[in-house]
Amino acid sequence: MREKLFYYGLVTAVAASAITHYAGMSAVLQFCIAGVAIIFVAGFLGKATESVAHYAGERIGGFLNATFGNAAELIIAIVLIQKAVNGETHLFDMVKASITGSIIGNMLLVLGLSVLAGGLKFKSQHFNIKLAGHNASLMILAVIALFIPAVFAKGLTVEHTNTLSIIVSVILILSYLLWIFFSMVTHKEELKDHKETTEEVHSLAPWSLKRSMLFLFIATVLVGFVSEWLVGTIDQFSAKFGLSELFVGAFLIAIIGNAAEHSAAIMMAMKNKMGAAVEIAIGSSLQIALFVAPLLVIISFFMGETMNMVFTTYELVAIGVAVFIAKSISQDGSTNWFEGVLLLVVYVILGIAFYLV
Amino acid sequence: MREKLFYYGLVTAVAASAITHYAGMSAVLQFCIAGVAIIFVAGFLGKATESVAHYAGERIGGFLNATFGNAAELIIAIVLIQKAVNGETHLFDMVKASITGSIIGNMLLVLGLSVLAGGLKFKSQHFNIKLAGHNASLMILAVIALFIPAVFAKGLTVEHTNTLSIIVSVILILSYLLWIFFSMVTHKEELKDHKETTEEVHSLAPWSLKRSMLFLFIATVLVGFVSEWLVGTIDQFSAKFGLSELFVGAFLIAIIGNAAEHSAAIMMAMKNKMGAAVEIAIGSSLQIALFVAPLLVIISFFMGETMNMVFTTYELVAIGVAVFIAKSISQDGSTNWFEGVLLLVVYVILGIAFYLV
Amino acid sequence: MREKLFYYGLVTAVAASAITHYAGMSAVLQFCIAGVAIIFVAGFLGKATESVAHYAGERIGGFLNATFGNAAELIIAIVLIQKAVNGETHLFDMVKASITGSIIGNMLLVLGLSVLAGGLKFKSQHFNIKLAGHNASLMILAVIALFIPAVFAKGLTVEHTNTLSIIVSVILILSYLLWIFFSMVTHKEELKDHKETTEEVHSLAPWSLKRSMLFLFIATVLVGFVSEWLVGTIDQFSAKFGLSELFVGAFLIAIIGNAAEHSAAIMMAMKNKMGAAVEIAIGSSLQIALFVAPLLVIISFFMGETMNMVFTTYELVAIGVAVFIAKSISQDGSTNWFEGVLLLVVYVILGIAFYLV
Repeated sequence: MREKLFYYGLVTAVAASAITHYAGMSAVLQFCIAGVAIIFVAGFLGKATESVAHYAGERIGGFLNATFGNAAELIIAIVLIQKAVNGETHLFDMVKASITGSIIGNMLLVLGLSVLAGGLKFKSQHFNIKLAGHNASLMILAVIALFIPAVFAKGLTVEHTNTLSIIVSVILILSYLLWIFFSMVTHKEELKDHKETTEEVHSLAPWSLKRSMLFLFIATVLVGFVSEWLVGTIDQFSAKFGLSELFVGAFLIAIIGNAAEHSAAIMMAMKNKMGAAVEIAIGSSLQIALFVAPLLVIISFFMGETMNMVFTTYELVAIGVAVFIAKSISQDGSTNWFEGVLLLVVYVILGIAFYLV
Repeated sequence: MREKLFYYGLVTAVAASAITHYAGMSAVLQFCIAGVAIIFVAGFLGKATESVAHYAGERIGGFLNATFGNAAELIIAIVLIQKAVNGETHLFDMVKASITGSIIGNMLLVLGLSVLAGGLKFKSQHFNIKLAGHNASLMILAVIALFIPAVFAKGLTVEHTNTLSIIVSVILILSYLLWIFFSMVTHKEELKDHKETTEEVHSLAPWSLKRSMLFLFIATVLVGFVSEWLVGTIDQFSAKFGLSELFVGAFLIAIIGNAAEHSAAIMMAMKNKMGAAVEIAIGSSLQIALFVAPLLVIISFFMGETMNMVFTTYELVAIGVAVFIAKSISQDGSTNWFEGVLLLVVYVILGIAFYLV
Repeated sequence: MREKLFYYGLVTAVAASAITHYAGMSAVLQFCIAGVAIIFVAGFLGKATESVAHYAGERIGGFLNATFGNAAELIIAIVLIQKAVNGETHLFDMVKASITGSIIGNMLLVLGLSVLAGGLKFKSQHFNIKLAGHNASLMILAVIALFIPAVFAKGLTVEHTNTLSIIVSVILILSYLLWIFFSMVTHKEELKDHKETTEEVHSLAPWSLKRSMLFLFIATVLVGFVSEWLVGTIDQFSAKFGLSELFVGAFLIAIIGNAAEHSAAIMMAMKNKMGAAVEIAIGSSLQIALFVAPLLVIISFFMGETMNMVFTTYELVAIGVAVFIAKSISQDGSTNWFEGVLLLVVYVILGIAFYLV
């Protein structure tokens, strides 16, 4: 029943988005409908990925899930980069803003809502403290990797900045693959909470292998189309409401692109599976910082114009601040409602600051 | 006996301060005597607050104590703001300096002296690790809330900076109220160390309700007068000794204003009630950062000229550094003499740097 | 047997270095051979120090070991400072770069290689969590002490900056001596892992007291000579390969000067004595930051031209980043291979950034 509703929604939203786009209706309408459509197709893409992962066996499946979990964000970003390479270079800034937004959105909004929702139902919730420790160290690596290019860029030529960005990107992707190897092969049992999570998620995928592959293909194509329609209206939409590109990228696009994670994490928290919720929220942030962002740098390099890794001071402060508070709250392996409030408070303060800038 | 001595001191100091003020004696003399008088009237105000809190019942009493524990600093700051609104705008900087000074003074000097004094008597002292964790997260929120306006102010107009400051202030006060609700209602037992503290403090208040209310009123008025006398001499005093306003605000005023906390925390530590000492020191810092400072912003707004939340780089570094070391030292829920030394060393280094600047 | 080989190597390397130096051969050859010779004489100096420490009794011996463990770096730096005082003031920057390099080299490269090497052999390795906590607090003190002068220097005159540097240096050395008193006298048993380490190291010293003293003297003289030969070729060497002095000081000189620590720490880790490895790596970093660096400032003051404590932004970021990740990884008192990878990744990223700048 709920399944059916989802597919009706999916088809309706995509169709409506296509119509508003090709009929050239008002940008605001196009933006809103494409936003709703993206939420549906991203959800569909997530399901298809999980289903394929299900058939790939536990290890490779886990790897697929961990690697393509943010496929929707990746596709949106690639559409933006394509436009940027074709002349609209200011869109590189929007890509970085949306990367920033995805990281802080997952780490503050998704985690904060999950912790708050879970905390209103349960006095305190617990998860694997070892996983929390590793997550914290990886978050710090992510912050370092984003800070170094920005700090050193001031003393570097443009080419050297690009070189540094590409080398750092390659190193980060290798680190991320080693982390997956570590957490899924050599130290799997130690990080067990994590395991339950993926199993939980796996069992949700009931299609045949062939259908899963087909759906994965269709979903990817759909995300690509809808992303392009969405991205095409951003300029007019932000102009209309006097929003900066920084704010649109870091808050609107990021919230839309991560809607699936939001609902999944909150649901897990309310079922008292805080380990799963943390894994979705923090895991997703880490994936963006250590895999998606560097991958985008490398993709832009092969497209002919390198997007460097130099984030603005505002973005770095936002990411640093998010990591700092999320680390402090998650490191004892237990959460309560007030910690959810703290995360949300920081998100709101950042949102207002980005809005005013 | 000791009680009596205190009241003799109180009356003498206030009278002497009034005489030196109205007789227009030398600024240095006025400053010194007003400083001593402030210590007495702040102590008196503290006692009266506790006594009223005692009658208000446990919850509301705890709330009163937690909320008006820094009433003396608040009144001194309001006197400064009043002068600033009436033209001497450079005094806004002194208010911020004294906020900075109160935060680092409590977190480094008061905590450091307590830990050292306790550590010389007991090999290691312990306190509730959950409370330490929450304190750490709140400290980080405080640092974030002070950093964000400073970082974003560079890209904002004056009005937007004021808007950001006011919104952040409202959010912080709400967070602080939620924290009190959390620590005194929903998760009271978990943070039990804290409880003993307030009880301990409560039992010290032996007046009738009527007398308590009367004393609270008298104390508030006295603090107001003496603050005004003290503040009026700062300019001449700092000029005389070649001290910067930053140093006077962040060290002299802050130490004077927090004298009551100093003695209380050290006494607790020497009785091996480290939980109480930490609660006074860190709790007081948090109250200044999350309640007093935002309240001052809002008060200044209603007075007609908003004091924004943009602290200087020196102040932000001092606060950040203090939080960083205090968090590292307190997070294991145990202390020893060397950790007291570390806190004091950082305070001394900051003091010298502020003195030289 | 292995002993003998070491002495043959020592004599050969020193002789070859002397010949290339006095024969005025190519700078690159001189640099390389002097680099190898430094590794041998630093190893010899370390052995002699330990041997003298062995006879000095447990406490004073531990103190000697802890205080002169970085004697080679100290001597290299003094040679550089002497040259700087005699006109080549740019060498002050190289001293600071080599201090930076020693800190991050020990904290990232030595610790990273040890953790990785140990982690490939053992699933997880453990060490005293109390020691880890204290190390973390001391690391934070070190970062603070290096940041404060740099931040405040912008608002200070040159003389005041020197004054601040000297006062901070004296305070740091006193803190370091108190730390040794704390860890070797008042709280020895609590930090026991540490103890085993020093004992382990002690038992390696098999000379008579007289011979130990003689060797200590010879080693010191040798390090002095070879350092001078090495330092004399840096300018030409860096020019030849287009390397910045920052990179040479922070990476090449630092790696050469710390070679002894590298091998010792890795050996300990592979014997599953992770406590000893951590003690060598982190302990050595702390010694450089809290004892060697301030001592150099004071020595330069007595030589007639104060080397201030103002490090460059790049250096501060490198040290801050190293402390941040090392703290996160070591604070749970257990390590695994992936944490070694994380430390090395940060070192490589910093190396590339310093190379490109």
